[in-house]
Order: sequence, then structure tokens, then C-alpha cells
Amino acid sequence: MSSTFTPIAALGEFGLIDRMKERLAGIPRSENLIEGIGDDAAVYRAGDGVLHVVTTDVLIEGVHFDRSFIPMSFLGWKAISVNVSDVVAMNAKPLYATVSAGMPRNFSVEMMDGLYDGMAEACKAYGMELVGGDTSTAHALYLSITVIGEVREQDVVFRRGARVGDYLCVSGDVGGAFAGLKVLLDQREQLQNLGEAYEPELDAFQYVIQRQLRPRARLDIIKALREKGVRPTSMIDISDGLASEVHHIARRSEVGATVRIPAVPFDPETRAVADQFLDEVDAYALFGGEDYELLFTVDPKDVPTIDDLEGVSVIGTMEEVSKGVRAYSPDTGLMPLHPAGYRHFEGPGDLPESGLDLDDLDLSGDGA
Amino acid sequence: MSSTFTPIAALGEFGLIDRMKERLAGIPRSENLIEGIGDDAAVYRAGDGVLHVVTTDVLIEGVHFDRSFIPMSFLGWKAISVNVSDVVAMNAKPLYATVSAGMPRNFSVEMMDGLYDGMAEACKAYGMELVGGDTSTAHALYLSITVIGEVREQDVVFRRGARVGDYLCVSGDVGGAFAGLKVLLDQREQLQNLGEAYEPELDAFQYVIQRQLRPRARLDIIKALREKGVRPTSMIDISDGLASEVHHIARRSEVGATVRIPAVPFDPETRAVADQFLDEVDAYALFGGEDYELLFTVDPKDVPTIDDLEGVSVIGTMEEVSKGVRAYSPDTGLMPLHPAGYRHFEGPGDLPESGLDLDDLDLSGDGA
Repeated sequence: MSSTFTPIAALGEFGLIDRMKERLAGIPRSENLIEGIGDDAAVYRAGDGVLHVVTTDVLIEGVHFDRSFIPMSFLGWKAISVNVSDVVAMNAKPLYATVSAGMPRNFSVEMMDGLYDGMAEACKAYGMELVGGDTSTAHALYLSITVIGEVREQDVVFRRGARVGDYLCVSGDVGGAFAGLKVLLDQREQLQNLGEAYEPELDAFQYVIQRQLRPRARLDIIKALREKGVRPTSMIDISDGLASEVHHIARRSEVGATVRIPAVPFDPETRAVADQFLDEVDAYALFGGEDYELLFTVDPKDVPTIDDLEGVSVIGTMEEVSKGVRAYSPDTGLMPLHPAGYRHFEGPGDLPESGLDLDDLDLSGDGA
Repeated sequence: MSSTFTPIAALGEFGLIDRMKERLAGIPRSENLIEGIGDDAAVYRAGDGVLHVVTTDVLIEGVHFDRSFIPMSFLGWKAISVNVSDVVAMNAKPLYATVSAGMPRNFSVEMMDGLYDGMAEACKAYGMELVGGDTSTAHALYLSITVIGEVREQDVVFRRGARVGDYLCVSGDVGGAFAGLKVLLDQREQLQNLGEAYEPELDAFQYVIQRQLRPRARLDIIKALREKGVRPTSMIDISDGLASEVHHIARRSEVGATVRIPAVPFDPETRAVADQFLDEVDAYALFGGEDYELLFTVDPKDVPTIDDLEGVSVIGTMEEVSKGVRAYSPDTGLMPLHPAGYRHFEGPGDLPESGLDLDDLDLSGDGA
């Protein structure tokens, strides 16, 4: 063991990734590897004109979910979906998944059945297969999933392809998953304060709760875009939050961006939750995360096609890099847009003042 | 949550896998998927005449390793190697790895550096690349790794290809990894009993400790076999133990097998450790596990070639399925050979009486 001890939190998420890349820099690069660490998925040549993409995402009890919140079948669905979302963000179709599952001693066969039923349901919905895995006892429930997808060489889309003048688009609506989490945390607190006599009020918030517990990867959107002949110039899925993902695209593409706040789509239920908690719904939409919608840029010529497409909103434009990443609203004018995404290894950071300090969201919870 | 609670241990390892397969049975099968769950790795068609294989294996602190035993660089090496071993067991060459790492709060940047240095070193040694991953905080250190490899369609080898009359072969030597574990556990106990004044005696056991902490996947063996024009009829890597793996090949191939005990290769250091603990070295060799050597069968015509190959031993023959899996030694004659591998979710089971009750090997240890 080393004699010095630097906490990992000191690096921050990007510092952590940079440090890992440094350690791995000495590995010779294969000519078939097109993209390694740094996009939604790695990309390599699999056959004539066919690329494969591979991505891995983990869900850990007490870090990413609370077993008392989420039915096991939803968790299985979600674990597959968050990985499919990364594959879709490369404009690729998911093919195969492997699952590595760690199960604590208090995990039952019935829970495992639910978990695998949810994964099977997701695989069917996305037209893919679960082909392998590893199981083990563990200290808490964790699911580490890898998904392999395919895309024709001419269709692959990276984060780094946005150009000045491109339009910024988002699928579906955003902020709902965060609103769902707020509701669930609030209901748990009520339940703890008031005991078993308390009847949780969840019916009014079914949409946002489903956004949090059972997100759907937008394979339908990339299919619709392909049918319409639109190939995004860059793309990413929204896991950390819209603002954070705009920064990712801007940085990798070496451009700036302006997000028009009034154009950012949210569901009325998301607004209702924000109102109830005296929060700003724009903050949910910009910084909430876990929506698993697609954020992408298109050439100006494709904007009329996008305007005709249901479930896609044009929310901004890509600018010269010197302009940075900004948000525009009629009230505030042009302002810098902070990324403010969720960082596993960081402290509170520069979060906006809107009740969104994610360190409050302690999911290490009180078990099943 | 379900109202019934059946502990997972009640299923056993095979019951667990069968149950998962049942839940996943409804997923439509792609024509490009050649082998799903059930071999060392899944196999699918990637391009013209080229198959890809994918496997995932996890290492969890307190279940698979003890952080006080293993330097982080060794752990990184081992985590890659155990996955490469599964790829190699399909007669395939490893190409790409993804790493999902969960790090506890008491994990330092220096430890992380060591871990990734070890993974980088392994990637270089096996001629492959680390292309992606996910990191998170976790309750304990865990590493879930997926490796993708490639093999020409005519070269792929499954567990299920052994035929009556084939010869059973093993690479390298076996039992050493288990001997290394015995030494490490014993030294820890001494250290606990005698305190800091105790000087661990590890120099005499460097080979077996290295077998336990830094195993090497036998990519060299499949290259040597290919050069000699030998394609095994079936193959598996030794993770659970030689006896257990013979059972896997026999069951999947629907044949029996006879293992000639005097032909099973072990290192003199492995014998020295067994002698010191008053154990039978044959038990280490048959049931020890974690050797990551290759167990394979060949056509009788290939036996002269195998005899000329350094580092491969012929240890038995494949029989009619009615004969079952047996061991032969001059002392005992022919006897049934129990699998007796390590089962994560099972109790002690039918372990041989040789001090090898793996439930004694509590690795949940006392930390770093």
C-alpha cells in the first residue's frame, strides 16, 4: 500500500477520468478502435462497414437507488435502459447485454426473479439479448451491465461533431426524473415522521415517479431520425442533467452554445412538483438529471424536419467557442450556464440556489 | 416486494443460473447469437467469418479478495486476467475491456493509480485495450470487468465439443493458487496472534503466492496450439477447480471422463505447502481452483503433438456418459470424482476430507 493517502473526492469526476486515462496511456492503440474512453460508448470496427459500440454502467444500492423505493422489476428495467441509452446516444442499435450482479445476504429468490423479469422485459422492448453474466454475494445489491450495439460506419454520431451554427435539440421532456425523486424522498420522510398510519400520496405524481424509477431509452427517436434522413452532428444522453450534457458536447466539439430556457420542455407534472416544493421548474429541467433523453445537434438544413417530428424540441444554437455555454431567458438575458451535474466523488460544488443541493439526496437509506 | 422470502443459497449455483435462464427465456433469439449463457463466454457473429466473444467477471472485496493481502496493481492485473482467461477458453484473442469500479470512501488516489497501472500492464501483456468504464462510490471495493475477444468461425471451441475417446489435457500446473491462499491466510493468522513483532515468512512461497495474487491467462497456450495445428474439441478455464471443470465439460458434452491422478501436474512448492499443512496435494490440485489454466480435450490424432508441447499435460480420457466422471490412482483404483468447486451461494457441500472446506476461508477479513 502507498504511504500517502489522497482522497478520491479531491480529484473530482473529470480529474478522476483524466487520471485513469493517464495510467492507461501506455497501451498501444489498435487500428480498429475508433473511440475509446470519453464518449457515451467506445466504438470499434467489427466487420465490413459495421461498427460496434460498447458501454458499461453500474447501479449500486445506497448510491444510485434505494431498495425501499424501487420494485425489483423496475430496477432490472432501469439497469438495462441506462446502458441502452448510452448505445442509442452513439446512434446505434443495442444487440447484447451482460449482467454482473452482486446480491446481499438479505436478497431473496423472489427479488431476483423480479430483477431478471425486469431485465428480460427491457431486452424485449429494445430488441436485444442478455447473453452472459456473473453473480456473487456482495455487501449491497449492485448491478453492473455492459451493452454492445451496432451502427453502420456512416451513421455513428459522437459528442465531438457539433459545429458553430448547428441547432441544439432535445427529445421528450426533462426534469421529470428529478421531480419524481423529490416526491419519493418527501413521501419517505412523511412515512418516517408519521409512521404506518400515513398513506403515501403517489397517484398524482405517477408520471414523474415513472420517469425516475422506469426510464425508457430513446431508441424510437434515433429510428425516427433515420427514417426522416436526419443524422445528428453530435449526440449525448441526459444522465447528469441537461446543462452538464450541453457542456460535454461543447467541450468535446470545441464550440460554445446558447440554450433558450423558455424552449426547454418539461411536463406539467414536473412543474406541479417544483411548485409544491417552492423550487424553480427550470432548475429541475436544466440540472435534474437521469432523464435519459437525447440531446443532439443538427445541421440548420434539418431544422424544418425536426420541427415536424413529434417529441423533439429545438432548444438552442451552437456558437463560437469564445462565447462559452450560456442560457438565455427574457427575464435574465444571456447568462453563463453552469454544468452543475451530479458528481459522485465531489462535494456540493457550484449548485444553483434552488433547493437542488444533491448532497441532500442521501439515498443510503434505511433498507428494504 | 414479494411476501415470500426464499434465500438464494437454497438454489445453489446451478439452480441460480437455471432460474435466471428461465426468466430470460422469453427474449427472442437473434440469428447472429451463436452461444448465450452457459459457456465461458457468449459468442456472436461480428463480421464475415469472424465471431466475437464477450464475458464478464467480478471481483468483490471480502468475497473474492482481501485488500490487506493483495497489492492494488496485482488486483488490477488479476481482474483483467480472469476475464481474458474466459475469452481464451473459447480459443479467442482478447481485444477490448470495459471496467466498472466501485470504490469505498477509504480508497485513495494512490490505490486507484496502482489498480489502473495493474490493469494497463495486463492489457499490454495480452495485446488488448481498455476502452471504457464507469466509476462510483461503493460499500467496498469491487471491479466488474467485461472483455470482448475475437476468433475465426472455424476456430471457436465450446465446452460442449468433447467426444468419447478424446484425451483430456491441462496447461501448466494446478493447485498452486490454493496453496498460495493457504499461506497468506496462515501468515495473517500468525500476524494477528503475534502482533507486529512477527515477520511474515513469504519468500519460500513466492511461486504459489504469485499464482494466487497475479494469475496469468494462458493466451500463450492457444497460440501454441494454433501454431501446431491443434484445435481442441472442447475447452474451459480452471476457475472453480480442475474436478469441477471436468464435470462442466462432461455434462455439456454428454460424455464421461476419467482423470489419471498421477498425471495431474502440480509444482513442488504446492506440494511443500500441502505437506506443511498436513493436506493431500492431490486435493489442492483437483479442488483448489483459481489457477486459470486451460482444461481441454483433443482428438487422439493430436496426442503426439500435445506430448511435444511444453506446458501441457495429458491427464485423462473421455468415456461413455454412463461411466460418469471418475478419478484413477494406483492406490484407490477407479473412484467417482466429485466436482467440489467453490459455490458462492452454497453451504459446505460435499467437500473432500482434506482440510479443504472452503467455508473456512473467510476472506471478509479485517481490512486494509
